[in-house]
Formats: sequence, structure tokens, C-alpha cells
Amino acid sequence: MKKLINDVDFMLVESLDGFAAAHADIVTLGEAGQFVQRRTLKPGKVGLISGGGSGHEPLHTGFVGFGMLDAACPGQVFTSPTPDQMLAAAQAVDTGAGVLFIVKNYSGDMMNFQMAAEMVGCDNETVIVNDDVAVENSTYTTGRRGVAGTLIVEKILGAAAERGDTLAALKTLGDSVNKATASMGVALTSCTVPAAGKPTFQIGADEMEMGVGIHGEPGRRRVKLASADDIAAELTDAILKDLSLKRGQEVLLLVNGFGGTPLLELYLMVNAVRKVLAGANVKVARYLTGSYVTSLEMAGCSVTVSALDAETLTLWDAPVHAAALRWGM
Amino acid sequence: MKKLINDVDFMLVESLDGFAAAHADIVTLGEAGQFVQRRTLKPGKVGLISGGGSGHEPLHTGFVGFGMLDAACPGQVFTSPTPDQMLAAAQAVDTGAGVLFIVKNYSGDMMNFQMAAEMVGCDNETVIVNDDVAVENSTYTTGRRGVAGTLIVEKILGAAAERGDTLAALKTLGDSVNKATASMGVALTSCTVPAAGKPTFQIGADEMEMGVGIHGEPGRRRVKLASADDIAAELTDAILKDLSLKRGQEVLLLVNGFGGTPLLELYLMVNAVRKVLAGANVKVARYLTGSYVTSLEMAGCSVTVSALDAETLTLWDAPVHAAALRWGM
Repeated sequence: MKKLINDVDFMLVESLDGFAAAHADIVTLGEAGQFVQRRTLKPGKVGLISGGGSGHEPLHTGFVGFGMLDAACPGQVFTSPTPDQMLAAAQAVDTGAGVLFIVKNYSGDMMNFQMAAEMVGCDNETVIVNDDVAVENSTYTTGRRGVAGTLIVEKILGAAAERGDTLAALKTLGDSVNKATASMGVALTSCTVPAAGKPTFQIGADEMEMGVGIHGEPGRRRVKLASADDIAAELTDAILKDLSLKRGQEVLLLVNGFGGTPLLELYLMVNAVRKVLAGANVKVARYLTGSYVTSLEMAGCSVTVSALDAETLTLWDAPVHAAALRWGM
Repeated sequence: MKKLINDVDFMLVESLDGFAAAHADIVTLGEAGQFVQRRTLKPGKVGLISGGGSGHEPLHTGFVGFGMLDAACPGQVFTSPTPDQMLAAAQAVDTGAGVLFIVKNYSGDMMNFQMAAEMVGCDNETVIVNDDVAVENSTYTTGRRGVAGTLIVEKILGAAAERGDTLAALKTLGDSVNKATASMGVALTSCTVPAAGKPTFQIGADEMEMGVGIHGEPGRRRVKLASADDIAAELTDAILKDLSLKRGQEVLLLVNGFGGTPLLELYLMVNAVRKVLAGANVKVARYLTGSYVTSLEMAGCSVTVSALDAETLTLWDAPVHAAALRWGM
């Protein structure tokens, strides 16, 4: 295993210390690194909290800041954070308007966030993200997995919370954005979880995993490596089939790298996907391209399409100042 | 070779088309994709032009925009752009105040930019970046290589050009920033140039290349994989030896991923390097962490330290709106 680490057991805490130092203008680290918190809270604003296993950076810690999350709870690599972490985060960021948990649909995260929601002493709601159209049920889920669409939910809800939306309104909006968002990915290589020390899965030199999950879980099928155009067509067709968009629908297109794929290839995929979308009479109003929801150093990418209306477009464009997403300020 | 491509021969042009579509608010593509140009030029401002082989994205195309570059000329992967490209870019972005070429010190780039400088019909100067302290002379250079420090030169000169600095002043400032900036990198794996179809170099499962170049060129020595702390110490010590900073000097610390290294590891390296710098009485005033000057999917990272004074700190903080670097707007 080749990684820039000192000791597998301290990898997460050392990385969080570096993150907190590098972004001290935006975040502070909760006690014992249980959570990353927005440095300046806005009294009366609903607190947005997410979290999940580490190894998907910049998700979620990189999205803590003005106009996005108030706190993120990082678990060990590919392991859910504990209810204790979520409780501590909720107590830290609730300023009286309650907290909203944004949870990717994995059994461990769901169970732990649910326990936290039952124990927390303030008003709270939970938005579950399950944008991955590749498979129903899977290694770690009942139902569909939550993947790169999570960042879109976090950005849009973050802007809505910033303008003063109530907890109930945010819950409704979040469910609606999740429903309007669909993703599917492909892996060319495996990643190696540090504590495991060996690749999560074996894959042939001429193979790819269509519909892979962000922990290297199996997808729809293991097939021969195809051209970017063919991959783009398969991923995008599956997404469009799920979303059933109307002609001329405006969307946000996120082409997301899994960690080991160069930007040169990601922009080539953008080009391939936009041709498929144009052919389906879908209008790309906004683009986001980069490695935002990763699977350590896995090579491959996911495509996410999110239908936008006038309100969600405005919320997407609203100012944000987080470590990994920043505009308008 | 596992890449998200259609045809090796069209990889660059398809990727540039995707890039231009995704960032149509910031850039336009020159004829035949010869260069990427800032959408809105500022009359009377010196035009900043950079370029180099592709495969280092987001360098340089991702740095075209307000407060940074006016144009970037992308060559084929790890191959210099041609003088024709640079000439076309200069003609497109000169608004009367002349153009400044920012060139990484590689023999091919140096020769082609020099030819362009001799042929271009407007006032021009060239700033050569050679921040890599690993080796004197190398596979593709006479003298030191230009690596991740290039983005710091581009950002600071971009802000200075935006406020109206003259061509002569920019040349002086650029040389000064280059001198105040030093870098060194380490590779854990090789990358694969698409046209070659096989890894650039072979490296054992327990080895790393200290002082590697951004094309996978050999560095100082091939050694056994070490801990992040030991790597941070060796890279940072070499940099500090080169810069000879005064006690309490404020610096910008850039921990740069080469393309295949997760953010989790990069932030861990930030943590390791900042401890070395603190021990040397160097004060990190600004951090930048991410995969900004890459070597396709190579695993590893580089450390760059740039000494800041009041002026360069202000210029670093000034607003920028490029695809890969954005703040203050």
C-alpha cells in the first residue's frame, strides 16, 4: 500500500488537523476532532449537519462554511461516524432554529443519524440522499445509495438556510432536490482502504465496473473498457430514464472524479455527456467539474444531473465560502 | 492503459471543448483550440500568457480569468505548445500594453516561447519559473525545472496586471516572486502518457522517487517508501535550504497533489509540513491545498513555499475568477 501517511490509526486525526489549520478562516475543529464546524455561526439560522465515512474528500468537511454546511462529522475511512459525533455537532451548531441532518443512504449512516436524531434535544429533520440510479439495494444499503448528488443537496439547502428558510421548508426543499437529482458512476480501478492495506476489489486491465458505488461496491455489471462516448451514453441514459425530464429542461451537470482521474479526462467526459444531453433536449444551465465526492484514489467518474427551476438555480448561484466550493465572495 | 478517452489523437481537443463549455462564463477557445482566452479582456492591461504541455491540469487553462491569466496555450500531453499558438494568443490578448509570457523552464517551452517572443509584433517580456530545488539540469531542462510555484507566479502577477502594473514592473515582480518560491516533490507511482500507452517509469511497490519532476522525470534518488513526516522533513528542509528565510518570515504553503493522491493524504501532508516550518520559525500566512499542478494520475505530492511580503500577500489575496482558483468574487 502506497500512501502518504504516518500511522493508519492516526491518519484521520492528522489529516483533520491539517485541514483545520489550512482553513482556519472558515472552520474550527470540534473537541477530539469529532466534527468540523463553521467558524462563525449565524444566530437563528437552521444548522445544517452532514457526515459520513472519510475517504470521500472534499465531501463533507470541504463543504462546511458560509452558504453550505454548519458542521460535518467524519467517520473513519468508509465507516459511519458515531451518534456521539452527530450529537456533539448538533449541540455546537444549533442556535435555536433546529438542525437538519443531510444523510447519504447507507445502513450505518442511517442507523447512527437516526439514533442521534432521537437523542438530540432540539427540533430536527433529516433529508436522505439516494441519487445513485445504478442499483436498488446493495452491499451497504437498503434502497439506492447516496453519492455525488449529495453536494448539490448540501449547496442548495445551505443557500436556503442562509436566507432564513425554516426547518420545515428546508426538509421539503431537500427532499425535492434529492428527487430531482440522479447519478451513476464507473470505476476503472479499485481504491485501497488504509486499514485494509489491499485493493477493495480486483479488476482486469481491460475491465471497468459500471454503476460502481463510492466505496468500490459492485454496480450493475463488470464489462470491457469502453470509449468515453459509450460510457457517457450509458451513464446519462440511465440517469435520464430515472428523471423523466421535460423537453428543454434546465439542469446542473456535475462530472465528478473519484480521486484518481485527471481533469483532462473529466473535461473530456463533460464534452461527451453534454452531447448526450443535447440529443435528449436537455439544457445544461450550470456545470461543476472536479473530484468532489471521491473514493480515495479510485480511477473513474460519476455523472450527476439535477433538474433546476428558477428557485434552485438562484440558490445554486448564491454565494458560498467553503474549503472546496467558493464563489460570490 | 485505462483512461476515459475516445481516441488518443483527439483527447486534447475533446477535453478543451468540454472545458470551454463548462466555463463559458470565463473563457473562450481560440481558433482550432490553439489557446484558451479570457472571455472579457481589459483594455490597457498587460496581457499575461502562459502555456505548456497538457497533463498538468488545471495548470494552465484553469488559471485563465479575471485576476490571473489572459491566455493559456496547451500543448499535447507533456509536449510544448508551438510558437504559432503563442503568437495567436498574443495577438488575441494584447490590448496595447504588451504581453508577458510566463514560462516553466523546460527546453522545449523555452525555445518555443523565445521564438514567439521574437516574432510577436508588440512589447513583450518573459518571466521564467524554475522553482524546483530537486535537481540542477535534468531530462528536459538546462537548470532547474518549473513546477507548482508557477501558479503562485501566475496569481500574483495576475493581480498586479489587473491593478495596472506596467510590463516592466510585472517582469521585475515576476522574477522576484520566482526567486522567493521553492518546491520539491515526491512520486509514489508513475503516470501513463496516453500516446505512449504504458507507464513513464517503473517503480517498486515499496519505493518512491524523491525530487520527481512533473513529467515523471527522475529526481534526486529512488528510496524506500518513508513516513509522511519523514517525507515532509526532507522536502521542506531542501526548500528552506534554498530560500534562506529570515526568522518569523511569512510564507504561502502550497501542498500540491500530482493527480492520484487523495485530499485526505494531502491535508495530512499539510499537517506534517507545517510542523517542520514551525520548527524553523517560519510562519504560514496562507495555505493552498489541492491538485493544481498535476502529472496526469501520478500519486505523490509536491511542497512549495513562497516568501510573502506585504505587497505579494495583498496580491495573493486579491480577487480571482478562474476555473480552478476563485475568491473575492
